[in-house]
Amino acid sequence: MDHNGRDDDRKKEDNKEEENGLSLERVFENQEVPSWRNQLTLRAFVVSFVLSILFSFIVMKLNLTTGIIPSLNVSAGLLGFFFIKTWTKFVERSGLLKQPFTRQENTVIQTCVVASSGIAFSGGFGSYLFGMSEAVAKQSTEHTDAFKNPSLSWMIGFLFVVSFLGLFSVVPLRKVMIVDFKLTYPSGTATAHLINSFHTPAGAKLAKKQVKVLGKFFSFSFLWGVFQWFYTAGDGCGFASFPSLGLKAYENQFFFDFSATYVGVGMICPYIINVSVLLGGILSWGLMWPLIDTKKGDWYPADLKASSLHGLQGYKVFIAIALILGDGLYNFFKSSKISYDEQQRTRLFLKDQIPTWFSIAGYVVIAAISTATLPHIFHELKWYYILVIYIFAPALAFCNAYGCGLTDWSLASTYGKLAIFVIGAWAGASHGGVLAGLAACGVMMNIVSTASDLSQDFKTGYLTLSSPRSMFVSQLIGTAMGCIISPSVFWLFFKAFKDLGTTGSQYPAPYATVYRNMAILGVEGFSALPKNCLYLCYGFFGAAILINLIKDALGKKWARFIPNPMAMAIPFYIGSYFAIDMCLGSLILFIWEKIDKVKADAFGPAVASGLICGDGIWTLPSSILALAGVKPPICMKFLSRRTNSKVDAFLGS
Amino acid sequence: MDHNGRDDDRKKEDNKEEENGLSLERVFENQEVPSWRNQLTLRAFVVSFVLSILFSFIVMKLNLTTGIIPSLNVSAGLLGFFFIKTWTKFVERSGLLKQPFTRQENTVIQTCVVASSGIAFSGGFGSYLFGMSEAVAKQSTEHTDAFKNPSLSWMIGFLFVVSFLGLFSVVPLRKVMIVDFKLTYPSGTATAHLINSFHTPAGAKLAKKQVKVLGKFFSFSFLWGVFQWFYTAGDGCGFASFPSLGLKAYENQFFFDFSATYVGVGMICPYIINVSVLLGGILSWGLMWPLIDTKKGDWYPADLKASSLHGLQGYKVFIAIALILGDGLYNFFKSSKISYDEQQRTRLFLKDQIPTWFSIAGYVVIAAISTATLPHIFHELKWYYILVIYIFAPALAFCNAYGCGLTDWSLASTYGKLAIFVIGAWAGASHGGVLAGLAACGVMMNIVSTASDLSQDFKTGYLTLSSPRSMFVSQLIGTAMGCIISPSVFWLFFKAFKDLGTTGSQYPAPYATVYRNMAILGVEGFSALPKNCLYLCYGFFGAAILINLIKDALGKKWARFIPNPMAMAIPFYIGSYFAIDMCLGSLILFIWEKIDKVKADAFGPAVASGLICGDGIWTLPSSILALAGVKPPICMKFLSRRTNSKVDAFLGS
Repeated sequence: MDHNGRDDDRKKEDNKEEENGLSLERVFENQEVPSWRNQLTLRAFVVSFVLSILFSFIVMKLNLTTGIIPSLNVSAGLLGFFFIKTWTKFVERSGLLKQPFTRQENTVIQTCVVASSGIAFSGGFGSYLFGMSEAVAKQSTEHTDAFKNPSLSWMIGFLFVVSFLGLFSVVPLRKVMIVDFKLTYPSGTATAHLINSFHTPAGAKLAKKQVKVLGKFFSFSFLWGVFQWFYTAGDGCGFASFPSLGLKAYENQFFFDFSATYVGVGMICPYIINVSVLLGGILSWGLMWPLIDTKKGDWYPADLKASSLHGLQGYKVFIAIALILGDGLYNFFKSSKISYDEQQRTRLFLKDQIPTWFSIAGYVVIAAISTATLPHIFHELKWYYILVIYIFAPALAFCNAYGCGLTDWSLASTYGKLAIFVIGAWAGASHGGVLAGLAACGVMMNIVSTASDLSQDFKTGYLTLSSPRSMFVSQLIGTAMGCIISPSVFWLFFKAFKDLGTTGSQYPAPYATVYRNMAILGVEGFSALPKNCLYLCYGFFGAAILINLIKDALGKKWARFIPNPMAMAIPFYIGSYFAIDMCLGSLILFIWEKIDKVKADAFGPAVASGLICGDGIWTLPSSILALAGVKPPICMKFLSRRTNSKVDAFLGS
Repeated sequence: MDHNGRDDDRKKEDNKEEENGLSLERVFENQEVPSWRNQLTLRAFVVSFVLSILFSFIVMKLNLTTGIIPSLNVSAGLLGFFFIKTWTKFVERSGLLKQPFTRQENTVIQTCVVASSGIAFSGGFGSYLFGMSEAVAKQSTEHTDAFKNPSLSWMIGFLFVVSFLGLFSVVPLRKVMIVDFKLTYPSGTATAHLINSFHTPAGAKLAKKQVKVLGKFFSFSFLWGVFQWFYTAGDGCGFASFPSLGLKAYENQFFFDFSATYVGVGMICPYIINVSVLLGGILSWGLMWPLIDTKKGDWYPADLKASSLHGLQGYKVFIAIALILGDGLYNFFKSSKISYDEQQRTRLFLKDQIPTWFSIAGYVVIAAISTATLPHIFHELKWYYILVIYIFAPALAFCNAYGCGLTDWSLASTYGKLAIFVIGAWAGASHGGVLAGLAACGVMMNIVSTASDLSQDFKTGYLTLSSPRSMFVSQLIGTAMGCIISPSVFWLFFKAFKDLGTTGSQYPAPYATVYRNMAILGVEGFSALPKNCLYLCYGFFGAAILINLIKDALGKKWARFIPNPMAMAIPFYIGSYFAIDMCLGSLILFIWEKIDKVKADAFGPAVASGLICGDGIWTLPSSILALAGVKPPICMKFLSRRTNSKVDAFLGS
C-alpha cells in the first residue's frame, strides 16, 4: 500500500524544504559531520546541566504562580550556542581547542535541555502532582482526606519510572513521523534553521542571505514581543486579546492574536493543515459549542463551573480526543504496516539507527518496572490501571507526536485530563479515585508530553544532520537530569514557602486546584458525562476514520483537498485564534509564492523560522521579568461601547 | 540676494519631484492642456455645487456635534472625478460628448468645493459666530447680556465681506510659495498625484506602475482607517490614543498615533522640516511646558481651566505665534524683495498669471468695503479694529500659508484666538469686548484659513498644469457659493432644532462655548496674561529672526542643517504626536533611499500620496457614519496598571 495519497501535500512542502536543505547542506558539505560519539561532548552536558537548572527554576516558578508555561526550546538552542561559542573562542585563543563547536553538538545541548526542563512541566508540580497535596486538598469541600504530600524521594522515584517511557515509545516512531510522513514540526524546524544559521560557514552566498533574512525577522519578532509586553498589565490586556474580528467573534475565540510564532508556524505548515485547523475552529467554536451551549440546563446542569468536564468543557475535551484518536489510530496502524516493508531496506541505509527491538524491549522493561513500582508509591493506583495505561499509551503518544508534527501543538494536558477521568471513574470515589486519577494523569502526561517534545527535537536533529543515536543518548541523559533537578527545585520552593498552593498567596499554583477539581468530578464516572457526549464522540471517531478512508480511496489529485481530522481537532479544545494566525501566515506565503516563487521558496522557511524563534527567545526575558516581579506598565483593554461608558463614568467620578 | 541658502534642502526635494513631474508630464504630453476658459465648464460647477451642499451639511453637523472637522479635500477630488467621469461616459456613449474630462477640470472642481465647504468651517458656525448667540451666552455666568443671535441676512453679508480677502491676499503669494520657495503642501501634492493618476493615459509604463503603487497604498490606508474606526467607541479610545512611547510620554503628547496621513506627509516633507517639527515638539512639550507647569500657582493661578489663555494654554498659543510671526515676517519681507527682481521676468513667462496689481487692488477695495460694512453688523467692532486687522492680515495669511506649505498644518484657529485676545483686550469689557473679540476672530480666521486652503489648491493646480487664472475663478465662484450655502445650511439646523448649542442636547456645539469663554477671558486685557509670557514671546520672536539670519549667513552646505522655526512652532500648540508620525515617514523614505534610491524617488511620492489620500477619503464615510449615529462597537482603552486593577475590580463586582 502506498503512502502517497495521504502525504501528497506534505511531500510537496518537503521537496521545497529539501531544495533548501540541499542548498544548505551543500554549504555545509566541507564540514565533516562528527561521529555520533563525538557529537556527545562533556562540555555540552555541562552547559546542558547549567541551563537545565536555570530553566527548571523558571518553569517551576511559573508553575506555582500563573501556571502558564511558555516553550523554552528556542532559548535552549540559543543559549547553548552562546555558552559553548564563548567557551570555544576562549579556549581557541589559548590554542588548546581540540574539537570545534559543530551544529550537531549544539543540537545535542538543545535536546538535552528540552528533555530535562520539560519534566519541570510534565512532572506536574503545578498541576496533578501538587494537586495531591494536603495544602490543595484542604481548600476543597470534598475528599479533603485524600491527599499525598510531596516528598523528594517518591517524586524522584515516580519520575524515573514514568519519564523514560515516552522516549522509548517515540524512538520507533521517529522514522515514521519524520522520514515517511515528513511532518513539519514547525518549532523543531525553526530551531534547526536557527542552529544552522549560527554555524553557517563564511563564503556561502545564498545561505548568508537566508541567515540575514532569518536575523531580520528574528529581530522583528523579538522586538514585537517586547513591544507587546508593555501593554499586558492585566488579564485580557494587550495584543493577545485584540478582538480583531469583533467582540462577538472574540468571545467565541475567533481573533487574530498577533502571535508572530503562529504566523511563522502557518508559513511552515502545508496549506491543507492551515485550512483544516480553521475549518475545525469554525466547526467547533463557530457552530457546535454555541449550539451545545443553548442546551444548557437540558443536556447538562446550567450551574456548573466553566472548567467542569460535566458541562461544555466535557464536550470539548472528549470530542477533540475522539477525533484525534480516530485519525491517530488509523495512521498508527497504517504506519506499522508500511514500516514493516520499508524498515528492512532503510535500516541498513540509515546510519546510527536505533533498532526497533531495542526500543520495544526498553519500553516493555520500563513499563514492567513501572507497573510493579507505582502501586507502592500510590496505593490507590492499582497495577492493572497502570497496565491499561501502558497498553494504550504508545498509541496516544503517537497521536500527540503526530498532531504536534502537523500543527505544532502538544495536547499533553488534554490526554492527562482523559486519564484523570477514565481511571478516576474506574477506581470510583470509594477507592481513592481522586488520587488514582491524578497519578494516572501524571503517567499519561509524562509519556505523551515527552513523545511530542522529543519528536520536535528529532526534527531539529534531522535538519542539522545530528545522529539519531547521539540525540537518543542526549535525551536519556537529559531526562535523567530532569528527574533529579525538577523535584529538587520544587522541593526548595516547597520548603521555603510554607503557604505554597494557598489561593491568594505568593505561590497559589492555580492549576493544582484545577486538576484536583477535575479529579473530584472524575470519580462520579461515565454516567456523569453530559448528555449525548458519548454519542458525539463515537460519531467524530468514526468520521475521522471515514475521512481517512476516503482520502486513501481518492487519487493523489483529490486527496490533497481532504482536510486533516487531527488538525481539525486541535482548535476544538484550544480555540480558533491560533488558526487565524496560521492562516494569515499561510496567506502571506501564498501571495509571496504567487508574486515570486523562487524567492518565496528560498526565503520562506527563513522568515518563518525568524518569526518563531524571535518570539520564542522573548519568552526567556519575559519569564525572568515576571519572576522578578516587574510588571508591564500599561493595559491595552478592549471594552464594548456600553461597558466603556460605564468605565468612563466610574473613572470620572 | 540669493534665496539658495534657505531653500537648498527644499530644492533638492523639489528636483526629485520635478524628475517625477517631468516623467509624469511626458506621459501627459500628448494630451492638450485646455485653455483656462475651457478648464471652467458648466458641468464642473454643477458638480461642485452639489458636492458643496453635501460637504457643507457634513461639516455643519460635525460643527454642531463634536466640533472636530476633518479635511475633505481629497474626497472633493475623488467624488468630482467620479461624478464627471460617470457623466462623460454616459454622454460619450450617446455620441454627444463635446469636451473630454481633463485633470485640469477635475482640479477646478476640487478647488471650488474646497473653497466653498471651507466656509462651513471658517464661518464659525460651530465656534465664534454661534458663540455670539443668546443660547450660548446664557450658559455662561458672565456677560450673559452680550449676544447677537444668528440671522440669515447678516451672516451672508458678513461672510461676503470677509471671505474674499483671504483669496486676494494669497494670490500674489502663490508664485512665491510654490515657484520660489517650492513649498511641499503635502495634502495638495497628494491630491494632485491622485488626480493625475485618475487621468493617466493608457500605455504609460512607469506612470502605470506609479498609479498601481498609489492605488495599493491608498487601499491600505483606507482599510487601515476603517479598521481603526471599530476601536474608537469613546474618548481616548483607539489607535490615535496609543501610548506607544509609554504613558508618561503620552501625557506630554509624545506618541505615535498611527495616522497614515501624517506618515505620508512626513514622506513628502523635506528631512529638515521633519527634524524641526520633532525638535520643536521636544523643546515645547518635552521641556518648556513641563517646566512652566511647575510654576503653577506662581506664574499663573493654579485653579484655571485647561483651556484658559491665562494659564499654560496662554504660553502655548502666544509663544507659538511669536515664533511663527518671527519666521513668517522675515520671509514675508525677504520674499517681497526677491519677487520685485524676479517678477518682471517671470510675469511674462508665466501664462495666465494674475497680475499683482489686480490682487492688491482687489484686496484694498474689499478691505475698504469690509471696514465700512462690518461695524454696521457688529456695533462693538469699531472700524479701526478692522483696519488694524486688515493691515496685519496679509502677513498672518502669509505665515499660515507658509507654515501649511511646510508642515501641512493650518493654524487658522490659533490666529483666531490671537484676534479674540488682542481685539477683546483693546475693546475692553465695558465696550462689548466679548462680541468684538468674537467678530475679530471671524475676520481673522476667514482670511488665514482661506489663505492656507487655497495655497494647497494652487499646489494641486501647479502639479496638474491647471491655469492659475482658472483656479482663481473657480475659487471666486466656490467662495461665493460657500457664502450662501453655509449660512443657509446652518439656518436649517438653527430653525429645526430649538435647543441648538445647549450642553447635553443633540447639537451641543461644544466649541461655541469654548470660543465664547476665551472671549470672556480676553477682555481682561494684556495684564491678565500669565507671568513672563510676553518676555518669552519676545525671546522666541527674536530667536526666529536670528535663526533666519544665521541660515542666510551660512553657506549652502551648512544652512540645510539649520532647523526651521515655523516648523518648530507647529507642535508648540498641537502636540508632538504628529511629529512622531512625520519622522517615521521620513525615516521610511530615508531607509528606502539608502536601499534603492531610484525606486524610492520614482515611487516615494506615490506611496505618500496613497497614504494621505486613502486616510483622507475615509473621513467622508466616517463622517457620514457619525452623522447617522452609527457608533463604533469597541473601545481600545489604555490604562495604567493601577487604574486597570481598579477597573477590573469595578467590572468584576
